[in-house]
Amino acid sequence: MLDVKSEVAKRAEVVNEAISNYLPIKSPEGLYKATRHLINAGGKRLRPVLVLISTEALGKDWTKILPAAVAIETIHNFTLIHDDIMDRDEYRRGVSTVHKLFGEPTAILAGDTLFAEAFEILTKCEVEAKNLVKAVELLSKVCVNICEGQYLDMSFEEEKFVNEQDYIEMVKKKTAVLIAASTSLPAILFGESEKIINALWNFGLYCGIGFQIQDDVLDLVGKEKIGKDWGSDIVEGKKTLIVINAFEKGVELEIFGKGEASKEEIEKAVKKLEECGAIDYAKNKAKEYVEKAKKELDTLKDSKSKELLKAISDYLISRDY
Amino acid sequence: MLDVKSEVAKRAEVVNEAISNYLPIKSPEGLYKATRHLINAGGKRLRPVLVLISTEALGKDWTKILPAAVAIETIHNFTLIHDDIMDRDEYRRGVSTVHKLFGEPTAILAGDTLFAEAFEILTKCEVEAKNLVKAVELLSKVCVNICEGQYLDMSFEEEKFVNEQDYIEMVKKKTAVLIAASTSLPAILFGESEKIINALWNFGLYCGIGFQIQDDVLDLVGKEKIGKDWGSDIVEGKKTLIVINAFEKGVELEIFGKGEASKEEIEKAVKKLEECGAIDYAKNKAKEYVEKAKKELDTLKDSKSKELLKAISDYLISRDY
Repeated sequence: MLDVKSEVAKRAEVVNEAISNYLPIKSPEGLYKATRHLINAGGKRLRPVLVLISTEALGKDWTKILPAAVAIETIHNFTLIHDDIMDRDEYRRGVSTVHKLFGEPTAILAGDTLFAEAFEILTKCEVEAKNLVKAVELLSKVCVNICEGQYLDMSFEEEKFVNEQDYIEMVKKKTAVLIAASTSLPAILFGESEKIINALWNFGLYCGIGFQIQDDVLDLVGKEKIGKDWGSDIVEGKKTLIVINAFEKGVELEIFGKGEASKEEIEKAVKKLEECGAIDYAKNKAKEYVEKAKKELDTLKDSKSKELLKAISDYLISRDY
Repeated sequence: MLDVKSEVAKRAEVVNEAISNYLPIKSPEGLYKATRHLINAGGKRLRPVLVLISTEALGKDWTKILPAAVAIETIHNFTLIHDDIMDRDEYRRGVSTVHKLFGEPTAILAGDTLFAEAFEILTKCEVEAKNLVKAVELLSKVCVNICEGQYLDMSFEEEKFVNEQDYIEMVKKKTAVLIAASTSLPAILFGESEKIINALWNFGLYCGIGFQIQDDVLDLVGKEKIGKDWGSDIVEGKKTLIVINAFEKGVELEIFGKGEASKEEIEKAVKKLEECGAIDYAKNKAKEYVEKAKKELDTLKDSKSKELLKAISDYLISRDY
């Protein structure tokens, strides 16, 4: 049996070392401190670790494309900094958000700087130029998608009816495409066939959707473990799959989008969501996506790394933080 | 004698057509309307036109690298959208700024979207992959520089003493490197020698510095023509070369950084700056940079396009808007 956590942690160390190499604090220090704040605060490094394991699953040498792993984590952190400004969030990864600590103008710039650095770092991969161009093309398209996803997420707050299809589309763009980029970039960089590239893209995409649905579940059942306030999605009026499903079942949530609620009110709302089966519905959906993801890996040769990819996808929907 | 304005306008039309092709309004419309708002409001298209003319000066076919011209204009517009948020500006190009019209969260996303689109569009150039990778590397480095330049510009507001060297460093990063990218990207994309690439980079860089100094002069002598309020740099406390030079000469400006001032007070301040020679000092500096820029072109073969590049550099510091 693979120990997912230790396998991930081992590779996260490699990633962290590469991050310090590729993202040093330079002058002007005020800008670069803001730029590095969140990335240095930690995080699971899930995406760059997926880059490494996907490379292994292709039987290739990830030392040649370590910059791509760093680029993906850099993009991820850029999106977090800007999302936190837009969502007015004050804490993340147990520390103050960048705009809270350094002010909004510097936070906007810190995100922009990371965005630009990501592409600069990506070009350092030691692979054929034509594959590198394809990688730039994919990553830039993915970034456009992420912006669209965040826009959809924000606009859902104003829309009365959001259905499951809208939700999946939003999650795909906002969260899943960057995970799909993580799993498929190695195949692109090493010039693998379209078939392999697509299989690894779909694997990451379905995992990403499952991951986000599980995140929504954790907001309600994970309590404080996840590091943000329990039930905050309901109070903030976030149209998650759980809520969408409950609304379709005619359930009414008094505190939905009210901005604040007591612990008892939240407990009552969560109980309603449990009783109507919406939480189980979401859990099952997440599981379905992960099963679909794993099937995509049939295209790849069997290997320990392929098993690890499968184990990680299972872990994504069983994690409790 | 070359008619700079009509030569630029002719090519700006080509650029505008390419912009509509490469930057259509897609779904989600709310996001893309914000993304295209400023770019559709006009602008001189100076940077992409410089891409075209620099290509001509190399005797190459710009239809192959038209996407690079669009990418540069796209980057320029991304920086304007984010700068306007940071600087709390409400008008640009005669229209409301993006954040004023669409709200700050959407404006942040609109800038991010353009940033990502720029790299996607750049990859569409029909040139050798290895040159395209070099172009991505250069453009991403330039974007990092622009962020640093904007950060320096903002931090100058809090610093008591800013000297001429600091100012030139800031202007180089904030404004000049993107113009240098415009003039040198064609040489990179067509695989020219380092010597040619460097000459065209320096040409653009020196032009860019001259251009920005002239912009500062126009704030004081261009009156309403420039489309922003006359003397606003003084009232806002901007440390331009003119002010830096005047302060070095011991001149005191009562309204500097006061946030508001009457027309008479501004007139008085401008008169002081004229009398101490600070405005002439800046005008001469701009001229020096443009002369230095033109010298760099000695490396290029003589051509009508080379003469046009020189004429544009002269125009940059003689323009009155």
